[in-house]
Amino acid sequence: MTSSSPTVLMFADTTHTAEMRNEVPHSVHDPFLYVEHGGKRYTVLRSLEVARMSELPNMTALPQEEFGLDELVASGLSGEQATLEIALRACKRLGISQAVVPPAFPVELADHLRAGGIELTVDASLFKTRRRAKSAPQLAGIKRAQTAAEAAVASVATALHDATVDSDGGLLLDGAPLTCERLKEGVALAFIRNGCGGDDVIVAHGYQTCVGHHSGSGQVMEGEPVTVDLCPRDPESGCYTDITRTFVRGEVNDELQLYYRIVKESIDAVLAAIRPGLPVRELHRISCEPIAAAGQPTRLTKKPGEVLNEGFFHSLGHGVGLEIHEAPHLDQNDDVLVPGDVIAVEPGCYRQGFGGVRLEDLVLVTETGSELLTDYPYELIPTTITRGVATA
Amino acid sequence: MTSSSPTVLMFADTTHTAEMRNEVPHSVHDPFLYVEHGGKRYTVLRSLEVARMSELPNMTALPQEEFGLDELVASGLSGEQATLEIALRACKRLGISQAVVPPAFPVELADHLRAGGIELTVDASLFKTRRRAKSAPQLAGIKRAQTAAEAAVASVATALHDATVDSDGGLLLDGAPLTCERLKEGVALAFIRNGCGGDDVIVAHGYQTCVGHHSGSGQVMEGEPVTVDLCPRDPESGCYTDITRTFVRGEVNDELQLYYRIVKESIDAVLAAIRPGLPVRELHRISCEPIAAAGQPTRLTKKPGEVLNEGFFHSLGHGVGLEIHEAPHLDQNDDVLVPGDVIAVEPGCYRQGFGGVRLEDLVLVTETGSELLTDYPYELIPTTITRGVATA
Repeated sequence: MTSSSPTVLMFADTTHTAEMRNEVPHSVHDPFLYVEHGGKRYTVLRSLEVARMSELPNMTALPQEEFGLDELVASGLSGEQATLEIALRACKRLGISQAVVPPAFPVELADHLRAGGIELTVDASLFKTRRRAKSAPQLAGIKRAQTAAEAAVASVATALHDATVDSDGGLLLDGAPLTCERLKEGVALAFIRNGCGGDDVIVAHGYQTCVGHHSGSGQVMEGEPVTVDLCPRDPESGCYTDITRTFVRGEVNDELQLYYRIVKESIDAVLAAIRPGLPVRELHRISCEPIAAAGQPTRLTKKPGEVLNEGFFHSLGHGVGLEIHEAPHLDQNDDVLVPGDVIAVEPGCYRQGFGGVRLEDLVLVTETGSELLTDYPYELIPTTITRGVATA
Repeated sequence: MTSSSPTVLMFADTTHTAEMRNEVPHSVHDPFLYVEHGGKRYTVLRSLEVARMSELPNMTALPQEEFGLDELVASGLSGEQATLEIALRACKRLGISQAVVPPAFPVELADHLRAGGIELTVDASLFKTRRRAKSAPQLAGIKRAQTAAEAAVASVATALHDATVDSDGGLLLDGAPLTCERLKEGVALAFIRNGCGGDDVIVAHGYQTCVGHHSGSGQVMEGEPVTVDLCPRDPESGCYTDITRTFVRGEVNDELQLYYRIVKESIDAVLAAIRPGLPVRELHRISCEPIAAAGQPTRLTKKPGEVLNEGFFHSLGHGVGLEIHEAPHLDQNDDVLVPGDVIAVEPGCYRQGFGGVRLEDLVLVTETGSELLTDYPYELIPTTITRGVATA
């Protein structure tokens, strides 16, 4: 941002709105005004938030009280109505006559500012672009979340490794059926012991592994796939990570061996190709090739209009940061990788009613290539590996 | 909603926006258009969401593809740009010329619809009001979350009860210091075993219990307060609950006895008073009286302009539903309780550097009075109570 950059206005909280959290890296529950103008940054919010806000670089925090909050409320306005008028007064005091806003800027405030003479223009690409390159604190948070994610995958692998098998092929641990529900308890403990949280936990087995976002339930059986797909969040930065591994306890049949081989070839090819400037369409093509070459359906090779529900039926992946799924989306669109992108690549191959294999790594796009942020082996056979703070 | 109700438009996803989740009780990650018009409801969204959406009562789900999605994208528009034009085409096909929208309706879409001849008016109170009375599925979800919350409080109480005390007054469990961090692991397990999630966990001890939203850390000591404040979320309904209990392991000193007595008197008086039609200002006054009568600071009795940080320094509570904190806010505003409100009442009394006592219950406002949704004793001395699916 320089003094010649366009004036920017946002109005949101930081707990629901990633574009605001990107600029104000604190948890602020009530919506507030954020301004970039003449090379400086401003926030207008309740006085109790001012001290914390003033610690941010190049930030002037202005208390709402300075703009007549008490008089406006005493005159009969609600807190929300007073906030609208205070935002207009703040823009006028800062000498703002025109500004760019994100697409989701609230229409009520836009109407009030425009009626007060401020010209507002929506700039979708500005706000999408500024979240692409992760800040150092965001990257540190993603790495903390990644440690928690790997510790959680390790807890699942260890339980699968340590289990015994009953006469019906069902897995047992400590004398009781080893269920997806129990494995998720290990995941929850690993998250909390490694300082993270996360509700959106997939530990699915058998045919469930082929059902988009089936979170998984029931006893794990010998020889079937177990897919662990986790996206814990680091509370300090507000950033997520994303990892998937697939395990098979017992003998791996030919079909799962094939899926594993081509998905591993896919992720290997993808990881080798990631670099700034690469079109995501090309990365998607690279990911599909080994899978299509084995005769499995992919989005690259499907007929126009055909809706896939097996083979490699989903997209290659997505950006990860303040949202679990954010730009760039790794499918057949016109986006191009940029330095600072953090992307999750997750090729998979499945058959309905049977299940499949998915592997997902997190990658930072660097100035010259890429850095793999995931440190976890791909092998289907679970081992008693340890990562992060262990759960047992 | 009748055929003479105003036409309503919303554009949001259901994972970040409670007002949309209230009307569409599914997890939908991409923003979509929602319409109420002529006594009927419509959604306009990707074809893969149509089947699930069509199961909702009085809902017609229209696939974006029907409005020319593929041609718009082929003509060079981004997915987001195509969505704007499809929303306008859908409004025109439904014969909409004017509509009310929530304050946070996105300005980009508002501009596009208005340029296309649709008149939009913001109606803040309509959208605030319609989330007040909880639906039956929301209430069922709140009750599931409440069961998880009580099971988690019970896990903390049980650990405090079962602990031994070392020669320095520190609590020990299974031979190791009993810390807030360990107690939070029990909370996480109780949440997941009772089908809920929740990251925002407070298990604080000693002086930390007087620091707004200190999440708590370190070993618990004999005779000091331990405050457990939990707000797990039921994933199916998307609804939260909220509970607080305070425990003291060992002898309770006179100051904590006093705080407990007046906070208990406060919550008893509040629970007895709750009924539809009651001004929240009056409920707030009732909650302050026993605490002020004991000579402790309250918002009711403070000097104008004074900022409290001890005594009963926070508000009485808040509505609970699709947001942890939502209307009605239980402070000195002009709101009035309505049947269907679910409110958390949480009086407390504290001293800086020492700590304090807070008790929080969840209450449903009924047609004739109220129903207490919390089933957990208030006693400071922890017992090995069981609620929900136990953690040990």
